[in-house]
Amino acid sequence: MSELRKDPVTGRWVIISTERRKRLSDFRLESVTIAPDDPSCPFCAGHEHMTPRELLAVGRNGSGPDTPGWLLRVIPNQFPVLRVEGTLDRQGEGLFDKMNGIGAHEMIIESPRHEDTLATLEPDRVEQVLLACRERILDLKKDQRFRYIIIFKNHGEAAGASLEHSCSQLIALPIVPREVRDEVDGARVHYETKERCVYCDILRQETTDGRRMIAENADMVAAAPYAPRFPFETWILPRRHQALFEEAPRHEYASLARLLGDILRRMNKALQMPPYNLLIHSAPVAEKAGEYYHWHVEIIPKLTKVAGFEWATGFYLNPTSPEEAAQVLRDVRL
Amino acid sequence: MSELRKDPVTGRWVIISTERRKRLSDFRLESVTIAPDDPSCPFCAGHEHMTPRELLAVGRNGSGPDTPGWLLRVIPNQFPVLRVEGTLDRQGEGLFDKMNGIGAHEMIIESPRHEDTLATLEPDRVEQVLLACRERILDLKKDQRFRYIIIFKNHGEAAGASLEHSCSQLIALPIVPREVRDEVDGARVHYETKERCVYCDILRQETTDGRRMIAENADMVAAAPYAPRFPFETWILPRRHQALFEEAPRHEYASLARLLGDILRRMNKALQMPPYNLLIHSAPVAEKAGEYYHWHVEIIPKLTKVAGFEWATGFYLNPTSPEEAAQVLRDVRL
Repeated sequence: MSELRKDPVTGRWVIISTERRKRLSDFRLESVTIAPDDPSCPFCAGHEHMTPRELLAVGRNGSGPDTPGWLLRVIPNQFPVLRVEGTLDRQGEGLFDKMNGIGAHEMIIESPRHEDTLATLEPDRVEQVLLACRERILDLKKDQRFRYIIIFKNHGEAAGASLEHSCSQLIALPIVPREVRDEVDGARVHYETKERCVYCDILRQETTDGRRMIAENADMVAAAPYAPRFPFETWILPRRHQALFEEAPRHEYASLARLLGDILRRMNKALQMPPYNLLIHSAPVAEKAGEYYHWHVEIIPKLTKVAGFEWATGFYLNPTSPEEAAQVLRDVRL
Repeated sequence: MSELRKDPVTGRWVIISTERRKRLSDFRLESVTIAPDDPSCPFCAGHEHMTPRELLAVGRNGSGPDTPGWLLRVIPNQFPVLRVEGTLDRQGEGLFDKMNGIGAHEMIIESPRHEDTLATLEPDRVEQVLLACRERILDLKKDQRFRYIIIFKNHGEAAGASLEHSCSQLIALPIVPREVRDEVDGARVHYETKERCVYCDILRQETTDGRRMIAENADMVAAAPYAPRFPFETWILPRRHQALFEEAPRHEYASLARLLGDILRRMNKALQMPPYNLLIHSAPVAEKAGEYYHWHVEIIPKLTKVAGFEWATGFYLNPTSPEEAAQVLRDVRL
């Protein structure tokens, strides 16, 4: 029989319907393949003139900005979703409310080489990506108009990537978005009742229980959530309570980089190089969520299609139980 | 410049980012093509033995159940998401909550002919589909375990359809799902402040303003919502206030059938036979939402991919303004 499960943070219910699709081979896996080189790729070394001017570069060996010789580069998005220039200009239109699209939209180009991915880069290079995200967040937080800064990644066309070259994205928003609002509010309610962080409670239960554990190291735990929306959805949480990603101690970025690479390689092996989305959830910029929110990473391989039922209800139908998914990923031999 | 817009019912913000993709030809349209016939299709006339036993048939010409001679057939889903048998058995697992997957999952097979679609069926046949949905809802509402009954449709593989043959689905749920909860709560808050239905207010503003209007008839209005999540998202609302789809007066089903066919044919022409999802939002079964909720239909053509940003934030990025989409659909010559 299928099961309805409730996410303890947001209260969101999902249906774990393992009767409908049982084996991994029943998924229509769309492997992400990356060409060894692409002369038209604007993110490759030597093509710096094809992008807006860089905001940050890491690993430059004496070369000037917007020239080759870097290991990581942050640039504004050429077609930004939101722009820094202008004023919010909040206004009504009869019943409706709108404001200008003020924000920031940046691309973190993770490597000068076209074929590198977060799964194949060395841990110190992945750590550089995380530290670059941290640096850009700390800079953008100075702008009082921004209420939330989201870091995310689209890997593979099926996950919404428009370019093959591995990159993460940062968008600074003038509002706190709904998914984050629901998590932060849920965590606050839990804290008000129990005086404990709900994510710390989850960590304690999952590390003791073990059925949804995938991998761990000194600072980080990777587990399948109890009520995952998607098959093989995986969360990585820092063991130590901390609301803000950008305020983590230095060694946690190194630990996260190692565990993230490990999880992505497990997914590549078990799920045949799946397209995926990755996101970092951290507390809103201007809210005192320090006691009750707990930053974390969510990885969502793209294995199923979202259909009418999900759009109509916001209720997700997941054909793979998290216990089954965790076991598959846990058992991968790397 | 892009614009942030807020849905007046749910409070959900979207980004209308028309700079990022301007012309219709920039969408990668995946036209839905349907084979004229498929000997392996379980929903075609003559293949009744391939499905579970029918719950309802319409237009039968003297023939017995589960034999050919019908115009519309309702059957239980062979691999149901939720099952009628059993008890909910709500329980905790430490921090977590779960219950058994109790519910109902039915398929409304809209025609015995493989190649028919809601866009090509005569209006009286589409009306039969709506009336069959009504009849099944009235029957399932007698089961006290169900809190919500959702009707939806996946048209085309990209929209999640697993079979080509045109059908709608009904799922009865033991909880009120999140998207409906947000709409009902938003409508209640609006009513508490203003003593008016928010959807009636939207209807008044849209029919007067005209920029987002697509088509209308005596009972029904089709318009692009002010803050659409997706390009060419279209809502059909009854002019008359009514919380429950199943309690609409008979002539409204006929009017909805005509307008629905009209809108789907406009989309087929303007967007090259797009895959789409369709859903009916009605008030929860056991709540007295009569004064403030207003049932309606939402149609979502599948033109863009949902990517990391949307999963991370719940904040949708729409490259087509509703004014532009409404004009395109309004201007279609049928």
